[in-house]
Amino acid sequence: MAAAPRITELIARKRDGGALSADELRWVVERYLATTTGTTGGGTADGVAVSEAQMAAFLMAGVLRGFTEEEARALTDVFVDSGDRLDLSALEGPTVDKHSTGGVGDGTTLLVAPLLASAGAQVVKLSGRGLGHTGGTLDKLEAIPGFRVDLSPEEMRDVAARIGCVVAAQTDRLVPADRAIYALRDVTGTTPSTGLIASSVMSKKLASGAGSIVLDVKAGQGAFMATEEDAAGLAELCVRIATAAGRRCAAYVTAMDHPLGKGIGNALEVAECVRLLRAAPDGRLAALSLDLAAMGLVLARGLEHGMLPSAREELVERWASGAALERLRSMVEAQGGDPRVCDDPGAVLPAAPVRLEVPAERAGFIGALPAREVGEISGGLGAGRARKGDDVDPAVGLDLAVEVGDEVAVGDPLAIIHARTDSAAGDAAARLRTIVGYRDEAPVQRSDVLRVVG
Amino acid sequence: MAAAPRITELIARKRDGGALSADELRWVVERYLATTTGTTGGGTADGVAVSEAQMAAFLMAGVLRGFTEEEARALTDVFVDSGDRLDLSALEGPTVDKHSTGGVGDGTTLLVAPLLASAGAQVVKLSGRGLGHTGGTLDKLEAIPGFRVDLSPEEMRDVAARIGCVVAAQTDRLVPADRAIYALRDVTGTTPSTGLIASSVMSKKLASGAGSIVLDVKAGQGAFMATEEDAAGLAELCVRIATAAGRRCAAYVTAMDHPLGKGIGNALEVAECVRLLRAAPDGRLAALSLDLAAMGLVLARGLEHGMLPSAREELVERWASGAALERLRSMVEAQGGDPRVCDDPGAVLPAAPVRLEVPAERAGFIGALPAREVGEISGGLGAGRARKGDDVDPAVGLDLAVEVGDEVAVGDPLAIIHARTDSAAGDAAARLRTIVGYRDEAPVQRSDVLRVVG
Repeated sequence: MAAAPRITELIARKRDGGALSADELRWVVERYLATTTGTTGGGTADGVAVSEAQMAAFLMAGVLRGFTEEEARALTDVFVDSGDRLDLSALEGPTVDKHSTGGVGDGTTLLVAPLLASAGAQVVKLSGRGLGHTGGTLDKLEAIPGFRVDLSPEEMRDVAARIGCVVAAQTDRLVPADRAIYALRDVTGTTPSTGLIASSVMSKKLASGAGSIVLDVKAGQGAFMATEEDAAGLAELCVRIATAAGRRCAAYVTAMDHPLGKGIGNALEVAECVRLLRAAPDGRLAALSLDLAAMGLVLARGLEHGMLPSAREELVERWASGAALERLRSMVEAQGGDPRVCDDPGAVLPAAPVRLEVPAERAGFIGALPAREVGEISGGLGAGRARKGDDVDPAVGLDLAVEVGDEVAVGDPLAIIHARTDSAAGDAAARLRTIVGYRDEAPVQRSDVLRVVG
Repeated sequence: MAAAPRITELIARKRDGGALSADELRWVVERYLATTTGTTGGGTADGVAVSEAQMAAFLMAGVLRGFTEEEARALTDVFVDSGDRLDLSALEGPTVDKHSTGGVGDGTTLLVAPLLASAGAQVVKLSGRGLGHTGGTLDKLEAIPGFRVDLSPEEMRDVAARIGCVVAAQTDRLVPADRAIYALRDVTGTTPSTGLIASSVMSKKLASGAGSIVLDVKAGQGAFMATEEDAAGLAELCVRIATAAGRRCAAYVTAMDHPLGKGIGNALEVAECVRLLRAAPDGRLAALSLDLAAMGLVLARGLEHGMLPSAREELVERWASGAALERLRSMVEAQGGDPRVCDDPGAVLPAAPVRLEVPAERAGFIGALPAREVGEISGGLGAGRARKGDDVDPAVGLDLAVEVGDEVAVGDPLAIIHARTDSAAGDAAARLRTIVGYRDEAPVQRSDVLRVVG
């Protein structure tokens, strides 16, 4: 660029519905980082600053006016270029990454990573510590005594090379520009933008280095995107960004109106995944995990989508043979965790002192079990974090005994609450009773997979 | 309010097209002031802050989603309540204030204030030092040697009581919330909002205490509002805010496609006004000043708009009698300025060392003399300020010899450039040549008053 653009003019252009060039977006983001975190005491070399207020105004203009695909691609590039990249070129197998936009009772990573590893792919999955009612993947794994998520790049590559999968914490040096801007978006009401979400998600995936990426974009009451249309728009944009960057990528748009798994809480979700892997695949969590892993495998092998059924069949076999469980056990051990969690999770994982069964108050079919409210109950028990840096309680949460569509008689268990105190358990049970919906006829069951993109 | 609202929820509501209650807007603005200027080192007592970034995001959401009339009224109230009010109750005559949204060659205040004073009204006009290509009213008056604009409230009331008019600088203690938010809007691209402009303008007028307010809302190429519709929307909102606050108020929507007066520059505009007052009313600047003063008089006397023609006639008589000039002379003297400026402005006002006449390059009618570009030429000569705190040069600018519709022969003067250096004069002349438009037929003349509101 010849001369530094004026930030107020760039804000005004976005405000009035225009688009910024890749160079202009790079200038805005890099200048923002230099202004707010610069080593020159918050200043910039030439005195042209982009303040938090200016960035916030720009982001709000973008939320309301939208970003073009070119802008989202450019933002992704700037975010990736702002920090380190994880170099996976030393790994021999095809590398696969997986990302979910976040739901309730969604332990798919704990199943997908070992499944893919058991089929010869190599999964290096970096996670952030998100905010939310339920813990993130790192919180779930840290419920396993001894499990370490803070690995060096060398350790990550070593575990992936030996075992085929590793799940670790994203370092501060990965996509620092995205981190800074995400923190600002979080406090300025500027999160709901397809372009901003896509560039944030995809910059992390591209910087993480995998050759193939499978995405799970949630739609529904318990998801960030409420409608299937919005989720599909996000999925399509993410896939296009990845493809333009030379990666293989596909996305599922999946339903998140009620919890995916039955365990809601960190240790409870680990235990559910182990129990599933110790038996044959069963239920919605297992089904979606197989779908995601099958797509990852098809992408990793450079196959057409027509090969999804046979890839899924292969993964079902590896599941049934115990191969996937063995990969999980090896990964837990390699990351310092107690591998006996894969034999008897109840004996190894932390347990809450209070367990309270919540019985059905009427007979009928479960018609509603809204994901967000179930997540809030779990959060109220201590399983999530309201603020960055909060501790999560690994033991608490809910074990659902039913899912939508199940028939119950009066007194049948709906769930077991795992709590620190009787009072907390009582509150959770009372809340659960108010949110469960009954109906007289069996609801129509629909697949969790709403759409395949890519 | 029971509990402090969460700023992110309020931002999100505005982002999604909702409205805030008066209490909520008060909380946002007061909390913002406490956060950014609080005596507790930028913190707030209960730790609930509204940062510059959050305010900027909120303002951008408001710019794009709009503010309701109730919101604009509430913001006006909060701004007024944030600081001192000027108490004019000790003045005996009816008090009138006048405000223009700003144009090029607009010295109406220098004519309207003494005209109203000559008819028995009392005008206490507070001005800010705006940014722009041409100086503000304070800059123009300060071109008069000795003229003081920094008066105490007591001095203002004293001058107004004795003479009928006073023009002074708005103090830092008037509408501090508006000042803080205006400064933020200026750097975050969040100025173009009818609701924000109206509450900013009207809070200053309400805090200034006059019982009647006449507004001049400019529309056109050289104005902030480009279209008559937008300007009328702003005028209507301003009038409703004033009326709801118990003031008498009316507005003119007037054209600002080419400069109103012929002098463009601080001393040049003072000189033009004096020359006009020393003769009979003549030209567009005089006509609009009479219209504005007539409306002020009708409002001050509690009369219907049907009395505007006779009020205007009365003012023309006071003009012709020299009464208005005498009021200007008394005001200049009372504020420390050299009153001889009203006898021989050329002898008293500062003069630029270089004068360059710009001749017409072709014959025909002047078809275009775009206000913004004329203002920029004047600004380029040093008559305005690009940054807050910049000095303005009182002597430089342009004296136009023509206005749109005038017929010229080749070589007839278009303007005289008043400059510090030959080079600056040459640049200004070259620019002026490129912006003057000629046409072969006389353009249709239209009135500067496009609409009357209130």
